[in-house]
Amino acid sequence: MAPIEIDFDKLGGMVPAIIQDSESREILMLGFINREAFDLTIETGFVHYWSRSKKRIWMKGESSGHTQLVKEIRIDCDSDTLLINVEQKGGAACHEGYKSCFFRVIKNGTAVIDGEKIFNPEDVY
Amino acid sequence: MAPIEIDFDKLGGMVPAIIQDSESREILMLGFINREAFDLTIETGFVHYWSRSKKRIWMKGESSGHTQLVKEIRIDCDSDTLLINVEQKGGAACHEGYKSCFFRVIKNGTAVIDGEKIFNPEDVY
Repeated sequence: MAPIEIDFDKLGGMVPAIIQDSESREILMLGFINREAFDLTIETGFVHYWSRSKKRIWMKGESSGHTQLVKEIRIDCDSDTLLINVEQKGGAACHEGYKSCFFRVIKNGTAVIDGEKIFNPEDVY
Repeated sequence: MAPIEIDFDKLGGMVPAIIQDSESREILMLGFINREAFDLTIETGFVHYWSRSKKRIWMKGESSGHTQLVKEIRIDCDSDTLLINVEQKGGAACHEGYKSCFFRVIKNGTAVIDGEKIFNPEDVY
């Protein structure tokens, strides 16, 4: 079989990566991964991202300790999006302390919080 | 509550939208949504996208009939990514006939097909 080719070109050198909890199947977050972050993710077994705001590679959990252990990496039909199943250390992916970054549901044009809060950000960062 | 504000600016007028099967919780695909596509999604109850290749709005299923009925729309902490739970008509989201566009898993540097094929694309398109 041919080695996997990821299409980093469509989005300026990065691809979106959907992060799913491998046990609960809950979607935890979406991040962007470039070639270097992908290679580091494979090498270390922990998810690394490209930070668009800080313009640098970062490992999820490098400051909070809430790392993401890779369980499975999937790729879509166009080879331009990743779906990564992880074991979320600390039980929360969101820097605001929620289990998932998608802790708000849109109802009648407003965003309503219904997600599960795991920690107080002031205690962690 | 304040009306929801979606940050379309970070990615040139669009946001990634993760599409999840509302029953099985399987991730079906990822698409990009701009302001017009979001408004059409809300108005019609069916997911609309911005096609980066065709440079136009499209409703998922407009040619295949495999539309996506919106069950819930969530938004992440940074308000720059959507998570949409849908009822996938026809049982398959991928234009290649698979239930999910993520029908390949990356193993030892190669992409291995393990997804469920629902239809033959030649019969549909």
